[in-house]
Amino acid sequence: MDWNIRKKGYDPEEITWSGNRFLIGNGYMGIRGTLEEYRKEQLTAVNLAGIYDKVGDGWREPLNAPNGLYTYLKVDGTMYRLPEKEPQKHECELDYRHGIFRRETLFRTPRGNVAVRSEKFADAVNVHRIGLRYTVTADFHADVEIVTGIDGDVWDIHGPHYDAVEFQEKDGILSAEAITHEKGERVWVSERCAWNFPAEVKLKQEENEILRRIIFVTDCNTDYTVEKWVSVYTSADIGGCEKGIDKENPICKDEAFYRDEAFYKAATGCLMQDYEEAKKKHTDCWEKRWDHCEVYIEGDDAAMEALNYSLYHLHCIAPRHKEGLSIAARGLSGQTYKGAVFWDTEMFMLDFFLNTEPEVAKSLMKYRIDTLPGARKKAKQYGYEGAFYAWESQEGGFDACSDYNVTDVFTGRPMRTFFRDKQYHISSAVVYGIMRYTEMTGDYSLLREGGAETVLECAKFYYSLLYKRVGGDRYEILDCIGPDEYHERINNNGYTNRMAKYTFESAVKTVSLFMEGTIGAGKTNEADLSSLETKYKDAAEKIYIPQPDENGIIEQFEGYSQLEDVTVKEVEERLLHEKEYWGGAYGVASHTKVIKQADVVTWLNLFPEDFPEDTLKKNWDYYEPRTEHGSSLSACMYAILACRLGMPEKAYPFFLKSASADLAGGGKEWAGLVYIGGTHPAAAGGAYMTAVKGFAGMYIENGAIKINPHLPDTWKKMRFQIHYSGKEYRIEITKDEAVILPM
Amino acid sequence: MDWNIRKKGYDPEEITWSGNRFLIGNGYMGIRGTLEEYRKEQLTAVNLAGIYDKVGDGWREPLNAPNGLYTYLKVDGTMYRLPEKEPQKHECELDYRHGIFRRETLFRTPRGNVAVRSEKFADAVNVHRIGLRYTVTADFHADVEIVTGIDGDVWDIHGPHYDAVEFQEKDGILSAEAITHEKGERVWVSERCAWNFPAEVKLKQEENEILRRIIFVTDCNTDYTVEKWVSVYTSADIGGCEKGIDKENPICKDEAFYRDEAFYKAATGCLMQDYEEAKKKHTDCWEKRWDHCEVYIEGDDAAMEALNYSLYHLHCIAPRHKEGLSIAARGLSGQTYKGAVFWDTEMFMLDFFLNTEPEVAKSLMKYRIDTLPGARKKAKQYGYEGAFYAWESQEGGFDACSDYNVTDVFTGRPMRTFFRDKQYHISSAVVYGIMRYTEMTGDYSLLREGGAETVLECAKFYYSLLYKRVGGDRYEILDCIGPDEYHERINNNGYTNRMAKYTFESAVKTVSLFMEGTIGAGKTNEADLSSLETKYKDAAEKIYIPQPDENGIIEQFEGYSQLEDVTVKEVEERLLHEKEYWGGAYGVASHTKVIKQADVVTWLNLFPEDFPEDTLKKNWDYYEPRTEHGSSLSACMYAILACRLGMPEKAYPFFLKSASADLAGGGKEWAGLVYIGGTHPAAAGGAYMTAVKGFAGMYIENGAIKINPHLPDTWKKMRFQIHYSGKEYRIEITKDEAVILPM
Repeated sequence: MDWNIRKKGYDPEEITWSGNRFLIGNGYMGIRGTLEEYRKEQLTAVNLAGIYDKVGDGWREPLNAPNGLYTYLKVDGTMYRLPEKEPQKHECELDYRHGIFRRETLFRTPRGNVAVRSEKFADAVNVHRIGLRYTVTADFHADVEIVTGIDGDVWDIHGPHYDAVEFQEKDGILSAEAITHEKGERVWVSERCAWNFPAEVKLKQEENEILRRIIFVTDCNTDYTVEKWVSVYTSADIGGCEKGIDKENPICKDEAFYRDEAFYKAATGCLMQDYEEAKKKHTDCWEKRWDHCEVYIEGDDAAMEALNYSLYHLHCIAPRHKEGLSIAARGLSGQTYKGAVFWDTEMFMLDFFLNTEPEVAKSLMKYRIDTLPGARKKAKQYGYEGAFYAWESQEGGFDACSDYNVTDVFTGRPMRTFFRDKQYHISSAVVYGIMRYTEMTGDYSLLREGGAETVLECAKFYYSLLYKRVGGDRYEILDCIGPDEYHERINNNGYTNRMAKYTFESAVKTVSLFMEGTIGAGKTNEADLSSLETKYKDAAEKIYIPQPDENGIIEQFEGYSQLEDVTVKEVEERLLHEKEYWGGAYGVASHTKVIKQADVVTWLNLFPEDFPEDTLKKNWDYYEPRTEHGSSLSACMYAILACRLGMPEKAYPFFLKSASADLAGGGKEWAGLVYIGGTHPAAAGGAYMTAVKGFAGMYIENGAIKINPHLPDTWKKMRFQIHYSGKEYRIEITKDEAVILPM
Repeated sequence: MDWNIRKKGYDPEEITWSGNRFLIGNGYMGIRGTLEEYRKEQLTAVNLAGIYDKVGDGWREPLNAPNGLYTYLKVDGTMYRLPEKEPQKHECELDYRHGIFRRETLFRTPRGNVAVRSEKFADAVNVHRIGLRYTVTADFHADVEIVTGIDGDVWDIHGPHYDAVEFQEKDGILSAEAITHEKGERVWVSERCAWNFPAEVKLKQEENEILRRIIFVTDCNTDYTVEKWVSVYTSADIGGCEKGIDKENPICKDEAFYRDEAFYKAATGCLMQDYEEAKKKHTDCWEKRWDHCEVYIEGDDAAMEALNYSLYHLHCIAPRHKEGLSIAARGLSGQTYKGAVFWDTEMFMLDFFLNTEPEVAKSLMKYRIDTLPGARKKAKQYGYEGAFYAWESQEGGFDACSDYNVTDVFTGRPMRTFFRDKQYHISSAVVYGIMRYTEMTGDYSLLREGGAETVLECAKFYYSLLYKRVGGDRYEILDCIGPDEYHERINNNGYTNRMAKYTFESAVKTVSLFMEGTIGAGKTNEADLSSLETKYKDAAEKIYIPQPDENGIIEQFEGYSQLEDVTVKEVEERLLHEKEYWGGAYGVASHTKVIKQADVVTWLNLFPEDFPEDTLKKNWDYYEPRTEHGSSLSACMYAILACRLGMPEKAYPFFLKSASADLAGGGKEWAGLVYIGGTHPAAAGGAYMTAVKGFAGMYIENGAIKINPHLPDTWKKMRFQIHYSGKEYRIEITKDEAVILPM
């Protein structure tokens, strides 16, 4: 299998997509797969995790750091940089086993050829650091300038986020300090270069950049290499700072903190490392990850490569450096979707980390526990109790989701959407994550450290949502949106109600754990616990769960069966404008049975035991042709269920679609003039789940790992490891047998 | 005071408006105030009450009969008709004291002048009959042809409704039989002419008309008069007939029924009457009406004329000929609003009839009792119990309201509206009508004849709507539309909830009446009645009624106070298209506090005792500037409440607006290419209510009529009669005193 993806030749049309495809990252930051000479026009970004800013009425979004990798070349006084200068040859490569991006470009100059080679990596060991090696080779005596430093003119979607960027040079180290608009958060970028050939150096500072000109004359066919370290720190690393409030915090002093000796040492000390040595540690770190997470597939290299490439992306964005950070829906590939955390994390990505690196899974869930106050505040805002998690969660649980999330293409007016206030299932995703962590690890620490309280608060939230008809008995959830967002303001969405039931059941379990002392005594006394138990048992029992009709079909929500039954294609043909929204009150799909993504099928995936297999199959068959798959969260749900139903051949294309979401490109990248592209970590996680839960058919029953494989025909062997209950197991499946080996 | 309205001169632009302004009618049919020579292009219509047809996907709408009044003039071989021929002089006049329309037109011909004078009336005594007298006078020896007969090419909005129109001539009587598309209903129009001068007569039959040419030569300045009777009968007169089903019913025989001798006698017998004699009976009949309903106002002729003109319109459409017919929202002025009965009848028109002609009020309410099966069916369709009345009620309670009532002007797509399925307050209007009838008349017969059952069925409906939060206590009505239709899918609309409470209270009263035997024993036994009483008492007590906030303002629905607070003007300025809908999911008003019409204020008018006067005033002051008054139902509600609050000067312009709705014109007549104009009987009824309940301040307390007048400054005296509890009273109010005299 090839652990490198390559792109030969240069196509300026692919700059945006390549930025996602060749992304590198280390959880602290994501560095788009762009070239050193690129600037904001090429969507260059060093995208930072968990730190946000808002300007005016623009969407609140994560920060991109000043670009300390910025480097370009001059030969005989002329700039040789892409995309302006057409190259003679060009190739990019991502070693995704080790998170190293390489490029090689050959320029023809009037006097001869000049080659640029570089490699860069987001250090997996010290996450503040980026390494870059930049080599120039000419076949003649060229007058060369390597211009390298920090570009402060960053790409923003709803920026500019920095009120000011200050630059300095000190002892050969270039630094930039950027201060954000909303909260006065600070971002410091420093860089240092080393080279072992004689050169003249000149400083070049302009309004938005600080650069070092390394000027020399080449010998023929000799490599001239500059090794460069970049470090990135932010005020969020030390707890963040509110604008002008915390004067005692040295970071918040009026004078720039990088002039503070202690910080300066920390921020620049890491720039003194030996490049090869640090790179070795970085690659070793990646090797260790693959020891636990690689999925081996014999007989289908394409599938194996796409799947492991997906896992690479999950690693790039896994927040290992800090407890209580989560993962944004577009990872660290930019500011799309506001850098916000959606249900994607718990429902689509968590399984991968639970199986391969449970401590990351725990950290993701700690984020939800830490943002419980924000969820409580949101519930209160809407007149509910307990915890209503943010649909688009930023730091502190702030809900970045707007009430007007879509623009009417016909009138240019914002359309009132209900994702923020009515997509109630978000809180159940949090509960699911906490309970899944506990079940898979057997570790009650998460529950003890706030997880139990979170589960109870979510149950409280759902309880406060419940209505019943006067004189009726069943409990209902009214006026909501399920996973299929094309149908708004619906009653008794099967998925939502089922997840609420699950939440009530989880609360009952949690109360039991409190009662038996497994997770401490809780905040309440025995009588209170007992009344909670009664309350949530009652709720779990009485909440209305739609049942299959006479044809075995479960109605996605009340009234769905009455909607117009047309094909996805027919609905698409009704579009009057290619960018018009399919949902909303009057969208082309809104009053039809066409849905955006798996909804009932998501439920059936999570709780297949709710119905006989025959019913699962009928619903797969019914809903699949009615699904647009307009979300990257859809394909894997159909794939996993298809495997369970013994249809791996139907699952396979969905699996490949999920696994190739970032590899193959072709997704929706622009909405009007707004970039909405980026990586698709939920699809990556979904591909993983399809492989492990679907094709391998791995599940837990009575505390033991079980396997019920449905390998595609071409797959001769499949091998992977998983963690369960504190131990790691190797699972090896062939056509003939499945072996589960403790490691 | 002048009981005639006149229009001198001819303006083709005013044809449509004049059709409404000069309308005549007798409850059986409305005849638009058009000229004899007009055809469908001039929106000529003999609009029939309570008989409907639907063609294809078009809206179901009432029938216009073939026009038996059709008459035009030829002089010296040339047609002289409006609007084609420009007149020398032209004048129209409506004697609205007697329901007689007159026109006089002078044409200049090459050889001299010819005058046409005519008068027509929809017979108040025999409602099947229309009288027309048509006089031609020339100042020279003119070769005249009066061409008169039946025009079968009727004006339809969503037609053509007649699959066939068959004509015949027999014994000088011309007849047309028209058969409808949907149900095979039949409409027969016959006409007969009489004249006392020598003339040659020729029959002229073409595809869509049958005409009689009366050919003669005039003496100078001599009147040549043709007296014409037209009769109109329909299969609905004898119970209607389903297409081809009831072969035993002679009307449904395949052969045309007008060939049946018995029917033919009935339909043509009335054409033999002496014109003057019949006209005398007609005017006597009108005089008797005014004896009971005229409102005399000293000091303000304009107000008196506008008000009595409004009452004229109510008389024109009052269904006296048949029990169980109601009044359409646009009266009998055409097919607009599908000829359907809305809440307008009970909430805005009923008071007039209760006060002046209780037997008409009873008949109107019988319509609702008769259509109870339709209301039950509708409730069932939506999963409710009891009776959910049609938002746009046609015969049998069929709801003509579409799910897609508005067209998006930007996309041309139909917009899903919720008038039909969520405007729950319609059933409470029915209850209000029945209870008001009983209270005002002291007559329990309506309750005995199905009214009581209707009240209980409506209570059952509201009970089945009720939700409560699990663990909560208050009963709520969710996801509805109140009178202000610009805000859809709202929770706990104050008006709707208050009317539901009223319905529950009415049900409790009804049960008591059953128990004490006043209205019979009901269908249920004592124990059942007692459980109903308990149930509805509980519902009346627990249904959530919004209360004034700290500023005394009652929130129209949950969340209203959070909406954007902008002026009506500002909202209007946001329109991108003059015809775009203000409401719906994304309308310019939808997410603002701007409302279409009185909503909270309608509630406060009906139940002023709910709050202290101070609160009523605060809400008037708050809501009035936020009201578009985009419905003719709005102004009177503000007017009546203003009077109660001692602000007759604020009430006056609203009163005049209501009273002049059809007199002054200027209302919205066209929506795109669709005619939506017509008369405004609810505004007429509202003007009456403002006069009697507002300015005169008439109310009932402890079984007695009370008066608390707030006359406008210029009003020196006001006098009117009302019926109460089976007796009639004359009420006379001056600045100094108010006298209530039994008559």
